[in-house]
Amino acid sequence: MISFVVEATDRGSAARAGQLGTPHGEVPTPVFMPVGTHAAVRALTPEQLSQTGARIVLANTYHLALRPGPELVQKAGGLHSFMAWRGPILTDSGGFQVFSLPRKEITAEGVRFASEIDGRVIMLTPERVIEIQHGLGADIIMPLDECTPYPATRELATRGVRNSLRWLERCIAAHASNDQTLFGIVQGSVYADLRRECAEAMVKLDLPGYAIGGVSVGEGLEELKRIVAATAPHLPPDRPRYLMGVGLPEDLLEAIELGMDLFDCVIPTRFARSATLFTRRGRIRMTHRRYRRDFYPIDPSCACYACEHFSRVYIHHLYQSNEILGTVLGAIHNMSFYQTLMKEARKAILSGAFLRFKRAFLSEYLGESGREN
Amino acid sequence: MISFVVEATDRGSAARAGQLGTPHGEVPTPVFMPVGTHAAVRALTPEQLSQTGARIVLANTYHLALRPGPELVQKAGGLHSFMAWRGPILTDSGGFQVFSLPRKEITAEGVRFASEIDGRVIMLTPERVIEIQHGLGADIIMPLDECTPYPATRELATRGVRNSLRWLERCIAAHASNDQTLFGIVQGSVYADLRRECAEAMVKLDLPGYAIGGVSVGEGLEELKRIVAATAPHLPPDRPRYLMGVGLPEDLLEAIELGMDLFDCVIPTRFARSATLFTRRGRIRMTHRRYRRDFYPIDPSCACYACEHFSRVYIHHLYQSNEILGTVLGAIHNMSFYQTLMKEARKAILSGAFLRFKRAFLSEYLGESGREN
Repeated sequence: MISFVVEATDRGSAARAGQLGTPHGEVPTPVFMPVGTHAAVRALTPEQLSQTGARIVLANTYHLALRPGPELVQKAGGLHSFMAWRGPILTDSGGFQVFSLPRKEITAEGVRFASEIDGRVIMLTPERVIEIQHGLGADIIMPLDECTPYPATRELATRGVRNSLRWLERCIAAHASNDQTLFGIVQGSVYADLRRECAEAMVKLDLPGYAIGGVSVGEGLEELKRIVAATAPHLPPDRPRYLMGVGLPEDLLEAIELGMDLFDCVIPTRFARSATLFTRRGRIRMTHRRYRRDFYPIDPSCACYACEHFSRVYIHHLYQSNEILGTVLGAIHNMSFYQTLMKEARKAILSGAFLRFKRAFLSEYLGESGREN
Repeated sequence: MISFVVEATDRGSAARAGQLGTPHGEVPTPVFMPVGTHAAVRALTPEQLSQTGARIVLANTYHLALRPGPELVQKAGGLHSFMAWRGPILTDSGGFQVFSLPRKEITAEGVRFASEIDGRVIMLTPERVIEIQHGLGADIIMPLDECTPYPATRELATRGVRNSLRWLERCIAAHASNDQTLFGIVQGSVYADLRRECAEAMVKLDLPGYAIGGVSVGEGLEELKRIVAATAPHLPPDRPRYLMGVGLPEDLLEAIELGMDLFDCVIPTRFARSATLFTRRGRIRMTHRRYRRDFYPIDPSCACYACEHFSRVYIHHLYQSNEILGTVLGAIHNMSFYQTLMKEARKAILSGAFLRFKRAFLSEYLGESGREN
């Protein structure tokens, strides 16, 4: 099981700094979890990932259930041993991926869909989702939920809340007491009253942590902020709060301000593959010809392995030459950028100056010279 | 400049163990040089490469001359600084690549061809090749040579020898005395008398090292052995001997037996990209379904990072999921396999038992269970 302690709450906002205790070690929060879809964070060895400052990773139940299958992962000693990651792991439920499929059938029982790999028809029920995650063996596991798309009618959002709540209850029943910790996932789309209703009903179930789901589905930052503002205050302050699938650096800072603790997103590794790298002065496209003769590191203020050893002229050259090492170094840098951002946000919260930190960061990051270039 | 000391010659063969001294450190021989075509060894950071046991790397003058260009590399502080490799570097002359182009014009002056990148017509002369390599700044540099294709008429092979010799003399004249060391490259195709003639003429030029070129062009192991046997004895025993572009583990052992010291080849990294990995019991195709439930490491006798932390079931899964990490771990393993092979060959030579080592290795590697599977 996990433990969670709020060490400090920011003076001017709901931002908090905490410690999440897991069977695989302590995690200072707020924390960003790299995504290892197939039990591998794109392009990075666990050693490199750990050097970026990452402490906890996310793996996708949906992808791993299809291949190699939970039985094989369990036989390999569980996810930690399978992917050689010694720190804590969180697995999502697969709900988000299944609800993104074009053809699926949703009933009160669960979701039915055809495997992308071999066309086999698969039925995902709350019980099966828990069983799969027991096989994978992550520290934190998630219940099957109905991820409402955006935009959604109130009717669709209401069904999402109802199904997610009922399925959560079945997940709790199916979740044999063991070292793994089950969170709840609040749905309700953009409807503040539905979000609150869903949160309150789930809080009654007294779970060790709560997530806000149904975001990062195209709603944009302003809508995201409204959703988090309508939900977070109804979650117990002594439990970790996880915002699923978010996001860009600016999204993370807004959500931290509203009291969220855990985040995951594919952006750092995905952007690295397309040569988009993060710097304190905004995003840069390393393939742009302006970097052909630029002898500075990717971000002169960064201390990661890539910035310590290589210049933009070299990284530009790697991307131009389609060298895998470009993606590797880009991923190391982007992940380090995210981890450093969270570390600094945490430090600012501990000293009660989160809003000042956020303002200073965003001013430099989004400022005139900070447009993507 | 380099130094070279033969520490031991094998009791039953021409195999030797030596020490190659360079401005960037000592290299025990025989040695395998990973190929960093674009100043990057495919998929590996310099840190990972160094952990495989690699001590000296090769970079391709042809590719780097086209992009990013020698001037930019020089401005970045030379290849060592550009690619963050602290050990010694050897650059080839680009001759091999240019002679592989379908359309090129060979004159006594040099070679003319169109750039693959922008169609620009480029004239490569002995003087230009030296100038480019002075810009790149490798420890060991190579002269422009005419790489004779296979098969070749005696007439064509004779022209290759004549051009290579004249161009070498011009390279020597163009090579201002500096820290870089220029080798000679012996051509002559499969004609033993031409090889010998070329070697003897080049030895008169008293170069600090010699290479055998015009191999790895489709001639096969038996022809390769005949070429090396016809050439190596005519090279001075107190200078390093470099067999260019070779090869498979079995090729390396045969060439070591005939007295060769340095090797380079893209095989370890190229094979890793297509999931072909080396083990003491032969090559294996990691995508084969037999590895879907195989919980052993890639090679149970290997101590590399990949074998220390991961099972075949995981590596198989990475390749099946098109995860870059599969290629990264495969490259780490294959390169470690090559470096270990060279280390063990050297140890066997030092104890006068190279032939026994070779026999034992090949028996296990090529044996019944060692077919590619």
